[in-house]
Amino acid sequence: MDRRAFLRASTVGAGAAAASTLAAPAYAQGKRTLTMVTSWPRGFAVLDDAATYLEQMVSEMSDGNLTIDKKAPGELVGALEVFDAVSSGQADMYHSADYYFVGQHPGYAFFTAVPFGGTAQEVTNWYYHGGGEELHDELGMIFNMKGLNAGNSGSQSGGWFRNEIKSADDFNGLKFRMPGLGGQVLGKLGASVQNIPGGELYQALSSGALDGLEWVGPMADERAGFQEVAKIYYTAGFHEPGSALSANVNLDVWNDLTPQQQAIMRYASMATTHYQLAETLANNGAALARLQSQGVKTLQFSDDVWDAFGAASKEVMDENMNDELFAKIRTSFEESLANSAAWINKSDNFYVQQRVRVLGQ
Amino acid sequence: MDRRAFLRASTVGAGAAAASTLAAPAYAQGKRTLTMVTSWPRGFAVLDDAATYLEQMVSEMSDGNLTIDKKAPGELVGALEVFDAVSSGQADMYHSADYYFVGQHPGYAFFTAVPFGGTAQEVTNWYYHGGGEELHDELGMIFNMKGLNAGNSGSQSGGWFRNEIKSADDFNGLKFRMPGLGGQVLGKLGASVQNIPGGELYQALSSGALDGLEWVGPMADERAGFQEVAKIYYTAGFHEPGSALSANVNLDVWNDLTPQQQAIMRYASMATTHYQLAETLANNGAALARLQSQGVKTLQFSDDVWDAFGAASKEVMDENMNDELFAKIRTSFEESLANSAAWINKSDNFYVQQRVRVLGQ
Repeated sequence: MDRRAFLRASTVGAGAAAASTLAAPAYAQGKRTLTMVTSWPRGFAVLDDAATYLEQMVSEMSDGNLTIDKKAPGELVGALEVFDAVSSGQADMYHSADYYFVGQHPGYAFFTAVPFGGTAQEVTNWYYHGGGEELHDELGMIFNMKGLNAGNSGSQSGGWFRNEIKSADDFNGLKFRMPGLGGQVLGKLGASVQNIPGGELYQALSSGALDGLEWVGPMADERAGFQEVAKIYYTAGFHEPGSALSANVNLDVWNDLTPQQQAIMRYASMATTHYQLAETLANNGAALARLQSQGVKTLQFSDDVWDAFGAASKEVMDENMNDELFAKIRTSFEESLANSAAWINKSDNFYVQQRVRVLGQ
Repeated sequence: MDRRAFLRASTVGAGAAAASTLAAPAYAQGKRTLTMVTSWPRGFAVLDDAATYLEQMVSEMSDGNLTIDKKAPGELVGALEVFDAVSSGQADMYHSADYYFVGQHPGYAFFTAVPFGGTAQEVTNWYYHGGGEELHDELGMIFNMKGLNAGNSGSQSGGWFRNEIKSADDFNGLKFRMPGLGGQVLGKLGASVQNIPGGELYQALSSGALDGLEWVGPMADERAGFQEVAKIYYTAGFHEPGSALSANVNLDVWNDLTPQQQAIMRYASMATTHYQLAETLANNGAALARLQSQGVKTLQFSDDVWDAFGAASKEVMDENMNDELFAKIRTSFEESLANSAAWINKSDNFYVQQRVRVLGQ
């Protein structure tokens, strides 16, 4: 996006601000309810879990004075329409994955995940202590939104395939679902990439509209039932090593909250990520074992394939560098990531290697 | 601790409950203040940071109706006296590391860290989604406390030494500070192990009372100034791969809080861990670089030394298994850890290995 596009976007934002002042806030006896549209069907593991925990924590900590009315896709707007709905003031907030909205601005990729980016911990380090949250807000200013990180999927699996990927050439012509910049990377390898909402994926894979897909990880993927349709599962992926979820709030709505309500929203978002990510990672191991018992074969991509992912990822990241804000966000993100990795590789990661060597796990 | 010891401990707990009913709660205009004793001098990086964030979050989210009055060691009780102070009702809550209190019950080791245990993420998985919090409360019932996990140091460094450790024999006779079960492991290797509070460590290392010590990691260690006294720094350690901090509350005080106040305390604890751990891990890399620029040499223990740590760790863990509750907690912890590792090793850890291979970080 160039500077003129920024200005157009800002105008949309300004229009949204004007529109949202027309919507009457839902007050009743001093209580306030925020309408939250989401990209997740009710009961979708990991993702709707995060949205639900946020809703519960805010309600409990405010003693019911601030509540969130969660809407599944289709109840107010479609799964991928939540961004525009909140930007325009049609809804108060959304819970989604910001990389669905790289069309609105490519910088949103960093607020979910970028290819060869950070693990959940590294992304969190950047968000709260490397300038990430401030940059989320800078992007949000364009679209009249306050950014909140609320949830994380952990490192996402490489995905579901009908056939093994023996070389990077096997992506050529493959009809594959992958959102965000990761999808653009697979496009470089010749894949026909689509971004389809989670609720429609099982049908698309069953019907053959897709040859393969990545969704989240064992806990969420098992619930979605992909093991019934495809039997090859790559456990590690290059595309989303720690995907953050967002609970972005219309900026006029945010500014109208009291400092106490803002504090509850912000800290509830942190607690949501902490609690939901732990749930996901506590359950993925058992879910993976159940998938394997249903005949799923787990694999890792070969070094050659990882090298191809690496080269294509660099191309995609570099292509977006003519956007000034994308470049600013990327620089901040990569500086923080390098700093995080400099210690974690020498401590946690070395420790885990030794634990595997000494104890076998 | 055997069953009789449990009963003795329970009697202490019951006595403490009776005593605490004598203390008048600090109410003023509907506001409540909890006195929190800590094991950390004011300004101690990582540890006092976590205690401070907890204090701030609770105050902001309750709009000042519930506040925490944080006391440094010596202001009310000593650094390692906080457990007994809260158990007896002398203070409302403490912020500390529960493995300082393995003398009160060896099961408390699991609520900070155990040798060859879990990383911060794995420990969090267990705490909230593998039965950990419930077991913390079961232990807490003995001592009249509600357990809260509030903070995590991440993987702790192997420690500061005057000379290189070339084999496990080099620990023989070494005067070394390491608390908890990790200290017992070094004792098996012949070290003279001491548990000295953080505020006294610099002096002990300077005077030669200690030959070496482990404290936390680069960010905290740099602030403590150990680089002025020792020049060999092992970055990975076996003893504390993800040390949780605790904010345990006297059970009578906890039960007297409203559901809203309890929710604020519990979710603020989660948010504290999320926010403070990220700060620590965002800053350790740069701190490590500064330590190196001051002449500190960073090393890793050899495989032989790790093997010796592994064998001695198993001995120490097994020696405690005659305590029924320790055995129950260990079983729960190890089941959860195996389940977490089964996925994380195939996803996050494999991904990071590929990232290091492809990108060099």
